[in-house]
Amino acid sequence: MAAPVPASVWSVDPRTGKPREQVAVEATPEEIDQTVRSAHAVRTALADRTRRAAFLRAAADLLDESAGHVIEAADAETALGPGRLTGELARTTYQLRSFADIVDEGAYLDIVINHADAAQTPPWPDLRRLKVPLGVVAVYAASNFPLAFSVPGGDTASALAAGCPVVVKAHPDHPATSELCVDALHRAAERAGLPGEVVQLVHGFDAGVELVRHPLVTAAGFTGSVRGGRALFDAAAARPHPIPFHGELGSLNPVVVTEAAAVERAEQIGEGLAGSMTLGVGQFCTKPGLVLAPAGANGDRLLKTLTHEVSEVEAGVLLDHRMRDAYVAGVRERAGLPDVEAPVTPGAGGAHTVGAGFLSVPAARLAAEGPHDLLLEECFGPVTVVARYTDEAEITAVLSRLPGNLTATLQLSTAEAGDPAGRGAELLAVLTPLAGRVLVNGWPTGVAVAPAQQHGGPYPATTSTSTSVGSTAIERWLRPVAYQSTPAALLPAELHDANPLGLPRRVDGRMEPGPTEQAPTAP
Amino acid sequence: MAAPVPASVWSVDPRTGKPREQVAVEATPEEIDQTVRSAHAVRTALADRTRRAAFLRAAADLLDESAGHVIEAADAETALGPGRLTGELARTTYQLRSFADIVDEGAYLDIVINHADAAQTPPWPDLRRLKVPLGVVAVYAASNFPLAFSVPGGDTASALAAGCPVVVKAHPDHPATSELCVDALHRAAERAGLPGEVVQLVHGFDAGVELVRHPLVTAAGFTGSVRGGRALFDAAAARPHPIPFHGELGSLNPVVVTEAAAVERAEQIGEGLAGSMTLGVGQFCTKPGLVLAPAGANGDRLLKTLTHEVSEVEAGVLLDHRMRDAYVAGVRERAGLPDVEAPVTPGAGGAHTVGAGFLSVPAARLAAEGPHDLLLEECFGPVTVVARYTDEAEITAVLSRLPGNLTATLQLSTAEAGDPAGRGAELLAVLTPLAGRVLVNGWPTGVAVAPAQQHGGPYPATTSTSTSVGSTAIERWLRPVAYQSTPAALLPAELHDANPLGLPRRVDGRMEPGPTEQAPTAP
Repeated sequence: MAAPVPASVWSVDPRTGKPREQVAVEATPEEIDQTVRSAHAVRTALADRTRRAAFLRAAADLLDESAGHVIEAADAETALGPGRLTGELARTTYQLRSFADIVDEGAYLDIVINHADAAQTPPWPDLRRLKVPLGVVAVYAASNFPLAFSVPGGDTASALAAGCPVVVKAHPDHPATSELCVDALHRAAERAGLPGEVVQLVHGFDAGVELVRHPLVTAAGFTGSVRGGRALFDAAAARPHPIPFHGELGSLNPVVVTEAAAVERAEQIGEGLAGSMTLGVGQFCTKPGLVLAPAGANGDRLLKTLTHEVSEVEAGVLLDHRMRDAYVAGVRERAGLPDVEAPVTPGAGGAHTVGAGFLSVPAARLAAEGPHDLLLEECFGPVTVVARYTDEAEITAVLSRLPGNLTATLQLSTAEAGDPAGRGAELLAVLTPLAGRVLVNGWPTGVAVAPAQQHGGPYPATTSTSTSVGSTAIERWLRPVAYQSTPAALLPAELHDANPLGLPRRVDGRMEPGPTEQAPTAP
Repeated sequence: MAAPVPASVWSVDPRTGKPREQVAVEATPEEIDQTVRSAHAVRTALADRTRRAAFLRAAADLLDESAGHVIEAADAETALGPGRLTGELARTTYQLRSFADIVDEGAYLDIVINHADAAQTPPWPDLRRLKVPLGVVAVYAASNFPLAFSVPGGDTASALAAGCPVVVKAHPDHPATSELCVDALHRAAERAGLPGEVVQLVHGFDAGVELVRHPLVTAAGFTGSVRGGRALFDAAAARPHPIPFHGELGSLNPVVVTEAAAVERAEQIGEGLAGSMTLGVGQFCTKPGLVLAPAGANGDRLLKTLTHEVSEVEAGVLLDHRMRDAYVAGVRERAGLPDVEAPVTPGAGGAHTVGAGFLSVPAARLAAEGPHDLLLEECFGPVTVVARYTDEAEITAVLSRLPGNLTATLQLSTAEAGDPAGRGAELLAVLTPLAGRVLVNGWPTGVAVAPAQQHGGPYPATTSTSTSVGSTAIERWLRPVAYQSTPAALLPAELHDANPLGLPRRVDGRMEPGPTEQAPTAP
């Protein structure tokens, strides 16, 4: 029997639906095996922290240098536009450099040293703990961020920073951009004296499934749909040796607008909501998808502004035809439910675009199980659902029915925002269990790459308690190892008593500050 | 149809196999539902850190006060003996008090604060992150530690410390001890002004399965067999909303004795090994189960001592008849493999006891797949396998075939222990990927309750990268939440700028030391 011809991978123009060029072929199971084995074989090359940091910085530099080509390629494949993509590239290279700083500083090693102590129960031997890389990490790229959550994105950057070789499964919506980016990463590796196998790219749906099942893959990062992410999560859990699967799947991102907030600034809230829900054609995982707003005159003011603002939004291209069709079908099905109105009807725009809109429904419809539960599921694209409540109990009833979210937002009045014992504080306590990030009087789109960031929440927002954005994203690819009674000559330098690398460590209960961590001056 | 009669739960004397008394009945699905709902309902009672710490200390005090009864009950059900159980109780109450200290100190909250910074890419809003409890935690008690890994054990203590209500599924081998302990915990809760529902006990195999599937259970901790743990892990992963399952399942705990170490101290190593593998009738998860020792005269010296020492060990009671029968069958099957010798034959002792022993096999038999792979699986009880190697390549070949372990141990010569570029360093690098704790010239039994401890390793040692012993065990029951642009009046006190609670925090990249963390004096 002749070997099957490998499937071609084409770059497609989402503005026309027409193929642009053949970029690659899908990886066969044998190729996946070879790829993972070669990544595993070079894992010790990443052990040198200085070299890893240089690699990440070189990657940022080379991507910045290739900005013109990268943005052009990404725009041709995603239609996200040069403005958004310029910002996304800046965010991506910032992220790579941030993780280089994190590697240099070394706090992520989470070093704890306990000298032997016979007075403890049971007695302590000499114990010295640090974190070590897990091994080869599989990264599943996202459709909606061809750079920041794809080949050179946060999962790749944090895994490489942790010292793990990475195999990226390209998203089929932007294969040419993926190839350009992995080329930049390979040149960066070369510049830092590292083998190119530390980061590799594969294409193909089946390749992605093979990858998560490969015995030498030790963890996975994923950004995408609930359906795709859950299938890969299940495969990761069903392995003979299960592995951590850090998936970011879906989020409704509820917003609660209090009556007092609407009284105070209904128009401002309507304007902010319109901007956030239609930003980037509604293609953000943090798009506010459900807004609890008061029934009555003040809520009407909010809806009036929202109607005006959303009507002005031009039709835009969704990332591919499958998503466009899902959006059109999704909004139609939602709009057809009893008691659902569409002050601005969302749906198809031109042949390849979609129009923004929003739906309105009495909150009571969402307070108990029924066909309206569909409105509590994410609909990817520029649409939101405004649920109008008539009393506070309806807010709580709807919130109690929500699955986990990346974000939850409160819009409060000035008085509520300043009262630690008032309605704002009560609602904050109700929203906190629902999400990884809770906002007051802001909008959830826009995710800062910061140490205090948490981009992850209860399932299905994410499949683990970790974040995929910000400094602590590195924790996903590490595990602790404790060395017991190990002679100084054999210990890694990180664990020597003299702290020759100047790392932040906790020694016998006291913090040894690292080079960039000084005690603060008096407050 | 009449309701089925609930199954009785009996306390059994393992020394005779005879039932002692009926202790309880197995929980029905309805009772599990009620139990979990009542635990969930009281979760906010645990929000007060001061009260939680008081609760943990009161639990330690009350268990210490009841020491006589608790140890008597545990000995009657487990035959572990008053000496071992006195130590285990001390360890258990130490652990409870340690977690109280950890709650007081607050470093586990992992607080990171970033003030707004427009110069970042993209700009940072005000972001303040801390960790919050997950919710109701299910704890599955172990057979071999009726106290330290059961009702008042590390999983319970760390989950309560994190602020999570706990439902413990009792181990069927010590139901009376479990009831005594939960009674002490209830009295401690009352003393601290907390409702008793914060920690509850259920009995029954089916109850355990119901528990991990309950929608309001948010995480689970387990210590036990690979088979049981994997079944529960699979159930946790298959839920509509999967939850973290922190299971400690099984471990071979390999030991490598170099030729030079055997030359220097074969007898001492043989004696240490005999002590560690027969300690507590070999019923420790860290029992060394595979020893790579040199063939030839120096290895023979080691085996001679081992033979002498193990022959002296008296027969002992395994925890129940099922384990005893599994041990007898397991050692018989292993001893029957080609080329396997039994210098001291392990097997049945009296009618209710087992005898310690060890097997010897050429390491070459373990270097490739075959029937001898059985020797690479844990056999619970006082037996170990000594694999005699003829060259260094055989060591590496066998180690490359091992699954994950809780511990891995090196026995080195003085010269090897002092040479950072020698054989000892090479072997340490090979052992580190295999285990969570790596020891040099020590023995793995005995697990210190220390901040630097890591009791967990690659699967099947544990199903997650976390530890189940030591301070960081608390991390398993927490998730981060970031508050964005949240007015000071609504923020939890932990996140106020002035740090009114004196917590260790990282603020704009600098550590704010907490009350018990001062900068170290000059080295």
